[in-house]
Amino acid sequence: MQTDQLSLTLSAIADPTRRAILMRLMDGEASVKELAAPFDMSIPAVCKHLKVLEGAGLISRGRNAQLRPCRLEAQPLREVVDWIEEFARFWDTSLDRLDGLLERLQSADPTARKN
Amino acid sequence: MQTDQLSLTLSAIADPTRRAILMRLMDGEASVKELAAPFDMSIPAVCKHLKVLEGAGLISRGRNAQLRPCRLEAQPLREVVDWIEEFARFWDTSLDRLDGLLERLQSADPTARKN
Repeated sequence: MQTDQLSLTLSAIADPTRRAILMRLMDGEASVKELAAPFDMSIPAVCKHLKVLEGAGLISRGRNAQLRPCRLEAQPLREVVDWIEEFARFWDTSLDRLDGLLERLQSADPTARKN
Repeated sequence: MQTDQLSLTLSAIADPTRRAILMRLMDGEASVKELAAPFDMSIPAVCKHLKVLEGAGLISRGRNAQLRPCRLEAQPLREVVDWIEEFARFWDTSLDRLDGLLERLQSADPTARKN
């Protein structure tokens, strides 16, 4: 059975190191070496985490063969919010409260913040 | 290393069957047999999923030794929203948008809807 995208996303963020990596990437692109530094982890261990995040579409890698900098892709988180919103629907019909967050996740572009 | 609560919650909902079980429990308490029916799954397979959900605090089980009905506990989902909110914080400072959802998850009581 193929794993659905939402399950892939949730699995990927169900790890504190991977969540910390995503948080770090909010500051902008980073190389594997830069990502490994604060975690006291080996490069292969970090690469394993990056592979999971890339598989879930939560990061993309640059084409620079040497550095392949990692970049945040927040779009899959939108589906997580959608699912929790479906839950909240049972208690309250004012669904537009989350619209702002959904829009921000949709147009997420961390590099734009720097300009 | 002990798994943190947020990782436990995310792992638990990173499975379509477990998410469907939680959705079913929005309609009220259900026995294992009732939960197994729509999924065409064996009772032991459903019990395995329930154990994961119970371990993450997303369901509780009744004391009736025979039926042990399952009940939804939506509170842990609050932390998932908190984490995604921390993400959204980078794009927008109007954080109060999610407050309503957080409150609803906090006071979640599916049985109350029936009264």
